[in-house]
Amino acid sequence: MTQDGASATLYFGPWYRRSPFFEATRRYGCTAYDVYNHMYLPAYYDDPVVEYWHLLEKVTIWDVGVERQVEITGPDALAFTNMLTPRDLTTCAVGQCKYAPITDENGGIINDPVLLRVDEDRFWLSIADSDVLLWAKGVAVGTSMDVDIGEPDVSPLQVQGPRSREVMDSLFGRYVTGLRYYACAQADLDGIPVVIGRTGWTGEVGFEIYLRDSSRGDELWERVMEAGRPYDIRPIAPCEARRVEAGIFNYGSDMTLENNPLEVTGMEHLVDLGQQADFIGKEALRRIAAEGVRRKLVGVEIAGDSMDGELAEPWPVLADGAVVGRVTEAIYSPRLGRNIGYAWVPVELSMVGTEVGVETAGGMSTARVAALPFADPAKVIPKS
Amino acid sequence: MTQDGASATLYFGPWYRRSPFFEATRRYGCTAYDVYNHMYLPAYYDDPVVEYWHLLEKVTIWDVGVERQVEITGPDALAFTNMLTPRDLTTCAVGQCKYAPITDENGGIINDPVLLRVDEDRFWLSIADSDVLLWAKGVAVGTSMDVDIGEPDVSPLQVQGPRSREVMDSLFGRYVTGLRYYACAQADLDGIPVVIGRTGWTGEVGFEIYLRDSSRGDELWERVMEAGRPYDIRPIAPCEARRVEAGIFNYGSDMTLENNPLEVTGMEHLVDLGQQADFIGKEALRRIAAEGVRRKLVGVEIAGDSMDGELAEPWPVLADGAVVGRVTEAIYSPRLGRNIGYAWVPVELSMVGTEVGVETAGGMSTARVAALPFADPAKVIPKS
Repeated sequence: MTQDGASATLYFGPWYRRSPFFEATRRYGCTAYDVYNHMYLPAYYDDPVVEYWHLLEKVTIWDVGVERQVEITGPDALAFTNMLTPRDLTTCAVGQCKYAPITDENGGIINDPVLLRVDEDRFWLSIADSDVLLWAKGVAVGTSMDVDIGEPDVSPLQVQGPRSREVMDSLFGRYVTGLRYYACAQADLDGIPVVIGRTGWTGEVGFEIYLRDSSRGDELWERVMEAGRPYDIRPIAPCEARRVEAGIFNYGSDMTLENNPLEVTGMEHLVDLGQQADFIGKEALRRIAAEGVRRKLVGVEIAGDSMDGELAEPWPVLADGAVVGRVTEAIYSPRLGRNIGYAWVPVELSMVGTEVGVETAGGMSTARVAALPFADPAKVIPKS
Repeated sequence: MTQDGASATLYFGPWYRRSPFFEATRRYGCTAYDVYNHMYLPAYYDDPVVEYWHLLEKVTIWDVGVERQVEITGPDALAFTNMLTPRDLTTCAVGQCKYAPITDENGGIINDPVLLRVDEDRFWLSIADSDVLLWAKGVAVGTSMDVDIGEPDVSPLQVQGPRSREVMDSLFGRYVTGLRYYACAQADLDGIPVVIGRTGWTGEVGFEIYLRDSSRGDELWERVMEAGRPYDIRPIAPCEARRVEAGIFNYGSDMTLENNPLEVTGMEHLVDLGQQADFIGKEALRRIAAEGVRRKLVGVEIAGDSMDGELAEPWPVLADGAVVGRVTEAIYSPRLGRNIGYAWVPVELSMVGTEVGVETAGGMSTARVAALPFADPAKVIPKS
């Protein structure tokens, strides 16, 4: 829900794709959807604060079928995929995941997928909201590399929250719950083929189940629900407050093609200019690194009463009476008791502690640049 | 509105872009939106049948800022753009528009934009709902052609309906209303820079106004409304019934990347395999042309009571008890007094007059393959 309650009616239409879990989300009471990668993405089942606490204290199931996979296979799959991202993939083992921004020739961010090396010659880019398939296929037109690029029949679910380990254990056993953070493995559930990743959009302990047969979506959903019942599992939508706490960015709002990874707090370290591979954007990013960036995406804490809901549109950031940037998200963190979010600011105003003005939906306020993440991510599975 | 009333709440968010006409659409009472090219697209202001008749009898204004422009400029702009489409652009004059499908290396349809040759070395692709910008930029990575590709600050409005000529005449004069069908011209409205196209998504007489300065969106909208008042202008959403009558397809529902232009009724003629240029997909389409296609997107008339609203999702097409295709849109045409739409059918069932079964939201029915367009497009401006 947005801070000014701004909403509209979304009529379903044949131009939107449905995830194999869509009917389940309707059955379990989801009434608000976003549109993401041309598909429906659950927006809320319940009060977002109720969903937030359930995620922090128990276990939750999310339909994130919108995370389409761009699959790159073939003898040159590694070399080709390595060309798409500023990260060095030559050290990426089979069964490893990496957060891997994709950049264009100017260093602009095309997407920020989680990459999975599913097999020696099989990479998946689990994408945010832009048609990376078209980008990768377009790049492939002009190369002589031997690769196949497509969108396989893969639909992820997220199982997130402190009790997710028990749920996954009862479904898949120790083989899966023993995965390290950002590792993945092939598995099956009585014949339902999946890949499991120790990943998620929360910073909580959590897993992603990549369903490899969309005809079995409802069956998988109900199996997870059944296994989760002893732990009070419930379906929720992607949780804004928790992802901001974790310092996770949202492509399309926090950053777009207009931005490069050197401008994004934390993403600078993923740009490996020393690697041997000539990834797309390397020359531009080398130049930008030498010149220094002019603006930065930073964490901010916003003063004032606790905010009710999310942003409907960006808010202007002001310094000395002039607009110098924008807030891309701001939300109340119930456990931190503060309004937290992200903002683009000039690099000279990007140091932690710097104060700027913000024109919120409710009037003028101030924001202070904060270190990321806001809350320590629970990346390590606690010994129970 | 959908035939089974299927809808949800869409919360506004900073991850959707707003057209420069968005505030105007809200002010004029739009309450339902689609999401298209990561932006809000008006879905309805009023009863769609009321909007339909207004379009057919008077004049209407549409916010189609979602039609993003992919701009290709530079010395090799013609050669590069020609490589993207099966149409032969070497005969495309400056000031000419062309309906130009974009194909991948398999002949699959990436998008079906209207192309505008705005200048000798400046092409715009006025795109449907997929990130053609990423495709074109990706292709450019691997070429040595001297082109720049980007998304300029351009936002189209459509002014459609029999009285559109008078409205455009009072705004821009004969220079614009004298444009031939599928011609375009640069113009300005007291300093508001625009390009005008004699194009639209209706088959009615109509124009598109491509605003070239988004800071002046509200001003342009109100100028059009003011000029249209004597002709009873009103804002409407893209009109499904009228576009189906005209035999116009909708990318993302009627056809996708899985389809090629040789499979789409009417689009076969746009594939010029005899041209000199080696456009992307030429080899594949040559092979497909030689082998013959196996399925076809055709017009259908569906028996039974007049349908109330649009499809929420595709309907199965049946022959001899087996699913052999799908209906991609079906809607009641008030002036034809029939349910019309499109369906994918095996090529052996694609001849006009062939009857197939359809599993509609309301039960089993039959569909008969029909010639396209359903209603003659009013492409020629009538002498008033």
